[in-house]
Amino acid sequence: MEKNEDSFVKSGTIRVRYSDTDMMGIVYNANYLIWFEIARTEYCRNLGKTYREWEAQGYFLPVSESYCKYISPANYDDMVELFSRAPIEHIKPHSILFEYRVMVEGRLLAEGWTKHAFVNQDGKIWRKNNQFQLWLLGEGERNAVSE
Amino acid sequence: MEKNEDSFVKSGTIRVRYSDTDMMGIVYNANYLIWFEIARTEYCRNLGKTYREWEAQGYFLPVSESYCKYISPANYDDMVELFSRAPIEHIKPHSILFEYRVMVEGRLLAEGWTKHAFVNQDGKIWRKNNQFQLWLLGEGERNAVSE
Amino acid sequence: MEKNEDSFVKSGTIRVRYSDTDMMGIVYNANYLIWFEIARTEYCRNLGKTYREWEAQGYFLPVSESYCKYISPANYDDMVELFSRAPIEHIKPHSILFEYRVMVEGRLLAEGWTKHAFVNQDGKIWRKNNQFQLWLLGEGERNAVSE
Amino acid sequence: MEKNEDSFVKSGTIRVRYSDTDMMGIVYNANYLIWFEIARTEYCRNLGKTYREWEAQGYFLPVSESYCKYISPANYDDMVELFSRAPIEHIKPHSILFEYRVMVEGRLLAEGWTKHAFVNQDGKIWRKNNQFQLWLLGEGERNAVSE
Repeated sequence: MEKNEDSFVKSGTIRVRYSDTDMMGIVYNANYLIWFEIARTEYCRNLGKTYREWEAQGYFLPVSESYCKYISPANYDDMVELFSRAPIEHIKPHSILFEYRVMVEGRLLAEGWTKHAFVNQDGKIWRKNNQFQLWLLGEGERNAVSE
Repeated sequence: MEKNEDSFVKSGTIRVRYSDTDMMGIVYNANYLIWFEIARTEYCRNLGKTYREWEAQGYFLPVSESYCKYISPANYDDMVELFSRAPIEHIKPHSILFEYRVMVEGRLLAEGWTKHAFVNQDGKIWRKNNQFQLWLLGEGERNAVSE
Repeated sequence: MEKNEDSFVKSGTIRVRYSDTDMMGIVYNANYLIWFEIARTEYCRNLGKTYREWEAQGYFLPVSESYCKYISPANYDDMVELFSRAPIEHIKPHSILFEYRVMVEGRLLAEGWTKHAFVNQDGKIWRKNNQFQLWLLGEGERNAVSE
Repeated sequence: MEKNEDSFVKSGTIRVRYSDTDMMGIVYNANYLIWFEIARTEYCRNLGKTYREWEAQGYFLPVSESYCKYISPANYDDMVELFSRAPIEHIKPHSILFEYRVMVEGRLLAEGWTKHAFVNQDGKIWRKNNQFQLWLLGEGERNAVSE
């Protein structure tokens, strides 16, 4: 199966807040990482189980790496659409990669990715398969089938 | 003992960050509450025991009320001086009031206060005297004496 | 006309972000002021003209005072409903007061208010009636009539 | 000339704020980008001219890319040391790269980089050499010489 651009799924719509802007008059760069977090949360919700529930069961996904490319600035009051995906080949027992796109009215404002460790309640990294991983993987496979 | 304006103590100096500003070109209003938090932290450190240590011992101070009066805007790269005090008459077993002043080069930019509950690890409000309260009170009394 | 509790209008629904929380596990206090800002923005949008448009025409509403009472904590992933109102008696040429309520599933989590100056592009406070004020006032009157 | 690890310069010391933490009990990932911004600001100040002054003269450095690797978590009240450098080979008329290190008590917590466009007051990217670039470059060369 070839990598399919369409595997990005809609993962939330947010309105840019006045507090998101800086004195350059545009959204401050760090806020895009917060938007990525929102997209991850919605990605899980879309699959049928919230990240909150996963944490309650002892699964945590601290960020180990983040990357963002800022293409065009977002402005106050813009309606931002978030898209994300978790490519199957990067869903491993101990880590996972999420990719993101930030759009306004069909224009791509930013894109990026975050890498996460699968960690348990004691802060230990999972080495073997874990339920959260398998669940994400299952969905990834279903996505593949549905294409 | 009369209320003494001088009882405000220096509680930190911070540089205004680009991220603190908004598109109006000045520091965004919510950030002053963060500065108040920094002042509380430094207030405790000045008294000889950090808030981090108090939390480690099971004492928490969630905010129950906050007030801020914005007099003059702070700008990017300003060197902000924080002042705070905890008036004795407001240090009670279940709650405490902190007062703040935010200054730049001798000018008062903002002033305000926060009220906090004394809460234990289980989230229960202290009804009787607690160690954190008595410690703050002791300092308050020492301050009074030194005047 | 008597003050009517019902004059609060729905002013946005937001999902609590992971970034909104602090190590106490609940939403950090300063974020409520950001939610108040969202409510103001939606209050204007509901009246038919966005705050972004008002700024583009040279009307600014910097915050001069803020107050918040934290009644019950908000948690990650909660769906927060924002309510606001701008009482007619506090809509003056040079200043305005907004009142807010923050609710989750019918429970009141917080309430507060912010006071703002009406300022023009040069940072000067309006002393006479201004278009933004009259527009807000007109709506206030319409609200009164509809009761 | 070989790449010299020592070319990183101390660029600020900050105390971790309660507001920097999230419900995982550690500093939230997006805040590292804010720390990177602080380091850039101090990097310029160390060279003798503040970023504030450069902006006043019409030079802006919006972020075009950011990357951060999170190695070990920062905790509330930690004293964080920031280091940065701007490698000469990446100081171009239209763009610049800054590299960062975040340390606590000699331990490396995070490292990353940001890429920026050199933009003028009209938001246009500089295509030819600009004063800000030449100034940074001069310093870069001085650094090289001192090795």
